[in-house]
Order: sequence, then structure tokens, then C-alpha cells
Amino acid sequence: MAFDPASLKYDARGLIPCIAQDHDSNEVLMMAWMNAAAVAQTLATGRVTYWSRSREAFWVKGESSGHVQHLVELRVDCDRDCLLVRVHQHGPACHTNRRSCFYTVVRDGAEVIVMEPMAGGDS
Amino acid sequence: MAFDPASLKYDARGLIPCIAQDHDSNEVLMMAWMNAAAVAQTLATGRVTYWSRSREAFWVKGESSGHVQHLVELRVDCDRDCLLVRVHQHGPACHTNRRSCFYTVVRDGAEVIVMEPMAGGDS
Repeated sequence: MAFDPASLKYDARGLIPCIAQDHDSNEVLMMAWMNAAAVAQTLATGRVTYWSRSREAFWVKGESSGHVQHLVELRVDCDRDCLLVRVHQHGPACHTNRRSCFYTVVRDGAEVIVMEPMAGGDS
Repeated sequence: MAFDPASLKYDARGLIPCIAQDHDSNEVLMMAWMNAAAVAQTLATGRVTYWSRSREAFWVKGESSGHVQHLVELRVDCDRDCLLVRVHQHGPACHTNRRSCFYTVVRDGAEVIVMEPMAGGDS
């Protein structure tokens, strides 16, 4: 079946959540949002492109930082209301310079930071 | 720092997206939503509990199917607006009886199903 970005289920803002996962390690890197045009652009360019809710503009991941996400594979979930991109992540995915945005663990009722910023990188 | 579910950033409906990942394989299983009470209940019981947007009720994953998610670890992202639960998943996570909800890959412009329903399970 041909894939049409318009066939996905978007929320009232026209957005769909997209999980980014490292293709090599399977680490979950981040979650951000796409609209239909960002989905199409990601597939056309092979560079993961989100929709920035704060800037209301395309967000080509890594365009300013160099920490790009090269698309390996885009997956659609059973309800067609969530995406998974498997990527080659250059450097940190997180704006805090950590590899992943999920660096805080809730352990015994307390928040524990389990990941340090990457050395030599810039956010 | 003590963890307070009220400190997370919820959307206008009071919900936060939560990614479920298999603790052993690192496979991304599904994405669903929690409210603050579901976050608290998940931590208190060790059984991953979402908020069903369609039923407007707690959704203790696997309560009817037996396909429960035992919580190994809950993580919070840098913006505090997305959660990651690492789980021991019993049987399929998806209502289609597949291990993961992300069984459809977009390949060369077409949708390809890359995962079969699990044998012997029930949805």
C-alpha cells in the first residue's frame, strides 16, 4: 500500500508525536512532533524534520547544532497516531548535550540523573 | 530531588505521552497517555497504567488480556513533557497481538508490515 502522510491521524493542531530511536543501540533518544509536511520532508530528504511548536516552523534536527538525525526507517503504529523514526544520530540528541533526552530516572521516589553531557560536543 | 507527578508538563487535557520500551531488547513497544494519577498509580503498583482517552478511565495495561507491563524504570525527558517506561512486557503489547505497535515500515513510499502476530496469544 502506498504511504500517504495525509492518512495519518493528527491531533487538533495537525500534529503527530514521533519517537526517535538510535538504529544501532536501540536507545530512545527523544520525542517531538511532526505535521504532514514534516513527515513528507523527512521521507524526501532522509533528514529527520520535526515541527517546532514554539517557533511554529520546520525544525530540521541538527540544522544549527550539527547533531543531525539521518533517517534509517520510519514506522507507523497500529492506530496511525504515532510515528517511530529509527535514525543514525550524530552526537547528542538532547539540547542539554546528552545523548538522549531521557536522562532522568525516578528511583525510590526521587529523580536521579543517569547520563552526563557528551564530551567535546556543543548543544 | 523528590519526584512529584504534578511537576510534569501535561497538555490541555491533563495528559502526557508515555513511550513503553522493552527492558531486555530495547524494542519500542507502544505509546500511550497518562495523567498525573496514572503516573502515580504506575509507580505505586509497578504495573504500567495509562489513561484511556476513548474510555476516559484508567487503563491498567493487560488487565483484561493478561499482557501486562511490569515497570522496571520510569524516565522523564528534559522538557518534562514526555515519559519513557522501561518494562517487562508479557506477551504482545499491541491489540493486534503483535509484540509492538510499530509493525508497519514505510519503505520506498509503500507501507510494509514487518511483524506477524504472536503465536498462541490472544489480544
